Amino acid sequence: MTQRSVFFVSDGTGITAETLGNTLLTQFDGLALEKTTLPFINSAERARSIVDYINFVATETGMRPLVFSTTVNDEVREILRNVNGLFLDLFDHFIHVLEAEVGQDSSHATGRAHGGANTARYNARIAAMNYTMEHDDGASTRELDKADVILIAPSRCGKTPTSLYLALQHGIYAANFPLTEDDLENLKVPKTLQGREHLCFGLTIDPERLAQIRNERRPGSRYASLAQCSYELRQASQLYDRLGIPSVDSSNMSVEEIAATVMQEKNLRRLN
Amino acid sequence: MTQRSVFFVSDGTGITAETLGNTLLTQFDGLALEKTTLPFINSAERARSIVDYINFVATETGMRPLVFSTTVNDEVREILRNVNGLFLDLFDHFIHVLEAEVGQDSSHATGRAHGGANTARYNARIAAMNYTMEHDDGASTRELDKADVILIAPSRCGKTPTSLYLALQHGIYAANFPLTEDDLENLKVPKTLQGREHLCFGLTIDPERLAQIRNERRPGSRYASLAQCSYELRQASQLYDRLGIPSVDSSNMSVEEIAATVMQEKNLRRLN
Repeated sequence: MTQRSVFFVSDGTGITAETLGNTLLTQFDGLALEKTTLPFINSAERARSIVDYINFVATETGMRPLVFSTTVNDEVREILRNVNGLFLDLFDHFIHVLEAEVGQDSSHATGRAHGGANTARYNARIAAMNYTMEHDDGASTRELDKADVILIAPSRCGKTPTSLYLALQHGIYAANFPLTEDDLENLKVPKTLQGREHLCFGLTIDPERLAQIRNERRPGSRYASLAQCSYELRQASQLYDRLGIPSVDSSNMSVEEIAATVMQEKNLRRLN
Repeated sequence: MTQRSVFFVSDGTGITAETLGNTLLTQFDGLALEKTTLPFINSAERARSIVDYINFVATETGMRPLVFSTTVNDEVREILRNVNGLFLDLFDHFIHVLEAEVGQDSSHATGRAHGGANTARYNARIAAMNYTMEHDDGASTRELDKADVILIAPSRCGKTPTSLYLALQHGIYAANFPLTEDDLENLKVPKTLQGREHLCFGLTIDPERLAQIRNERRPGSRYASLAQCSYELRQASQLYDRLGIPSVDSSNMSVEEIAATVMQEKNLRRLN
């Protein structure tokens, strides 16, 4: 079966084009797709060159490629538009109605969505990431009151990826602490977190899934046994209930979904 | 000045709606905006409730809110459409033309873009993140040949955030190693990396910017002095040149831009 080619084209990083295109494509099951991202297409010359390439692919495969574009530059976009494929551009469809609504012309500035460093927003994200790295897995108690949220859970429930995602994507200061056997037995949060329960958010997971994840790490260990995993998760849930700590079952959730849930429950503000 | 309210509405995490809306809004300078994300709007009841809320905000502020939506559910979208604001939905604009092109109806399945765990793609991202965390700052040399890329640079040039972004966003196995004074003096990569130069990618940065970043960490130290920063960066550039290691100046680039550049230069495949 020939794969249909998909191109994500942008004068910036291509992240928005990927997000746009992939979100739309998730709605079509069973398509065989060959995806390519073409970032930094910011000159007429580059645009012509990739149009040639995409047209070549169209001829070779005998199937019109899908081209998702977020190209601010009008000249570049006009060149891309003539590609032998389905050309869908974010700005084409939305920018004029938005201009009309806010009563202002758009600036046509390139690379704004994911570009540039040293803005306040950008520096806040990097600071959040440094904070989160420093406070991964209970590694530090320094400036713990700066945390926007402290994730707690038994080992391998998803604390680290969720914390990093919260920091990198949303600029959230996310610390995380493991719940030790001692904590779980006594239904208490780690000593450092006592009096900071209002900052805490708990994770749980399906015991079988946890045993599977732990077995990848330490095969056949007590740590990875279903009995141990079940015990820890049962105690963790009791601990959350007892201390009024909100929690979520991460078993069937992506990092993005867990992060969105944490932010909603803890009423955390995204960076603007 | 009254701020115009912006809502990102989705039956999933809201990430695509945020990306779509924020990308468009970067094209308008000087707008005072108050942004709110409303994720998991996946029932008629929730949709009616947030329409009431947005209409309330419209009346209070006397300004029509901007509503960016990525809502797959037709019933929910029809309710949202009646909001007293500018309603821009991704699926409204693109899904029909895409259906026509691929000759297939869309599935209308919710939460696909950033939802669900345990898919091959998702597990690969988490595995990449674990690998990258383990190999941050030269912490481990285990399974180094599994690395898709090894970032090298003097301390504080942006190795860690770039590595984590590559892993979390794109599922890239990104190790990173600091270049020590010894490495820099002898214009060699760290011993562990010798013979692996083809995997390496170097970062540089403006010396003044580096001195500023280091001063936040160790104020007034030799480590943070402009002379030391300039020396290290000069040697690093020579090292990259001498060993034919591609590199980029990260001074004015975001993590997303650095990551896109690394992937392009090293010809790394994104997860599909």
